[in-house]
Amino acid sequence: MTMNPTACLILIGNELLSGRTQDTNLSWLAIELNKKGIRLMEARVIPDIEETIIETVNQMRRKCTYVFTTGGIGPTHDDITSAAIAKAFGKKLVLHPDAKKLLKNHYADQLNEARMKMAYVPEGAALIPNPVSAAPGFRVENVYVMAGVPRIMQAMVDAVKHELATGQPMQSRTISVYLPEGTIAAGLSKIQDANPDVEIGSYPFVRQGKLGSSLVMRCTDTQRLLSVHTAVHQLVTSLKGEIVEESENLAASGE
Amino acid sequence: MTMNPTACLILIGNELLSGRTQDTNLSWLAIELNKKGIRLMEARVIPDIEETIIETVNQMRRKCTYVFTTGGIGPTHDDITSAAIAKAFGKKLVLHPDAKKLLKNHYADQLNEARMKMAYVPEGAALIPNPVSAAPGFRVENVYVMAGVPRIMQAMVDAVKHELATGQPMQSRTISVYLPEGTIAAGLSKIQDANPDVEIGSYPFVRQGKLGSSLVMRCTDTQRLLSVHTAVHQLVTSLKGEIVEESENLAASGE
Repeated sequence: MTMNPTACLILIGNELLSGRTQDTNLSWLAIELNKKGIRLMEARVIPDIEETIIETVNQMRRKCTYVFTTGGIGPTHDDITSAAIAKAFGKKLVLHPDAKKLLKNHYADQLNEARMKMAYVPEGAALIPNPVSAAPGFRVENVYVMAGVPRIMQAMVDAVKHELATGQPMQSRTISVYLPEGTIAAGLSKIQDANPDVEIGSYPFVRQGKLGSSLVMRCTDTQRLLSVHTAVHQLVTSLKGEIVEESENLAASGE
Repeated sequence: MTMNPTACLILIGNELLSGRTQDTNLSWLAIELNKKGIRLMEARVIPDIEETIIETVNQMRRKCTYVFTTGGIGPTHDDITSAAIAKAFGKKLVLHPDAKKLLKNHYADQLNEARMKMAYVPEGAALIPNPVSAAPGFRVENVYVMAGVPRIMQAMVDAVKHELATGQPMQSRTISVYLPEGTIAAGLSKIQDANPDVEIGSYPFVRQGKLGSSLVMRCTDTQRLLSVHTAVHQLVTSLKGEIVEESENLAASGE
């Protein structure tokens, strides 16, 4: 588990902290990174304040194998991420000739000064292609700077994922059962103690007016996972729990 | 702006970082706090790891007027928030007699050892009522520890909001217009420079295949807000932008 590459995500934007925009980038990226065996360790949602961006990036890039940022690389005055990343690394913000070409091709005679701002990146940064709307993201060392718009962010991740180190993807099994958490807790705790290498999570739900628990088991080793899955299954059966649903691997849910 | 009380939110749970669960607590709390004039300055999503919870709580409680945490206060083995908060404050985790009574009333003869765990709080903590499922949250100094289930979290916020200090709520106006960000950026930047007390954000969208920008103006002073709103309106008109929608104050959207 600790051998796997790790990632942190920094979501930049006042609109996320005001409640205007409901983020969906975190869960998408978490699932995508796990396919490569990269574990998302932390996410931070921060405002468009230069000092905060600098401090957060400098903390996170030393903590994780990779840092991904989203938001703040557009053409308007509130897009300050690129300049802040340059400062975080003590680098100049410079016009990247390839980025300029990309924007010229895309915008032609609509390429004004505001749009040209999107061709400026920290000196030495590598561009991240943007097949949706041309203006690239960029990478400085282990920090990937991407757009906040989900469709563009996703395309940027697709463009760079081949270069990321890989680990063992976390496998998961979920048993959702009509048993309250408090009823199953003692038995579940024993299984967890006996199997510290398999992470067991319990999440309550209410469906059709009935209390239940989603029991999520996660491990990179399929055999170990299946062994714990069997033990949890036996526990649920011994408690006469009615199973609502069983599933393999994770998908985002609102629960 | 800096006179307003501030808040940080710590979302605790592996399920948020694995992509299993799509968070909605952040945007709900942001909007709710703003009604009181409390500004959400940062949110962190962290795993169920004791050391991480302790470190994060201790950083954040010194940064903001209030810290809110969600998740990890249930009866199962993976619910470690209460114990971690106690350690963050260097306090013992003790059985709270009122919490015990609440659980006894709610669970009667179903009150087992696992459920009784939910009556343990850091020594000296004040309970936060939970009208949904009895097990209380709690407050230590400026840190409010709440459930992760949205319905319960919301009820807990409702129960404590009368005790929070108040400030000037942020007012907002939004103009959504079929003009790409790059077209409006220069004019918008001038308006922002002339009105540093009104925060102007620009967020791109695509609707019916057309590029547009949502221009969001925010200020605690209604007169100042309306004055900038007029200026942005004039800018949009001068650029012959087709207005899609105008709105007052913020609501969460997926854009």
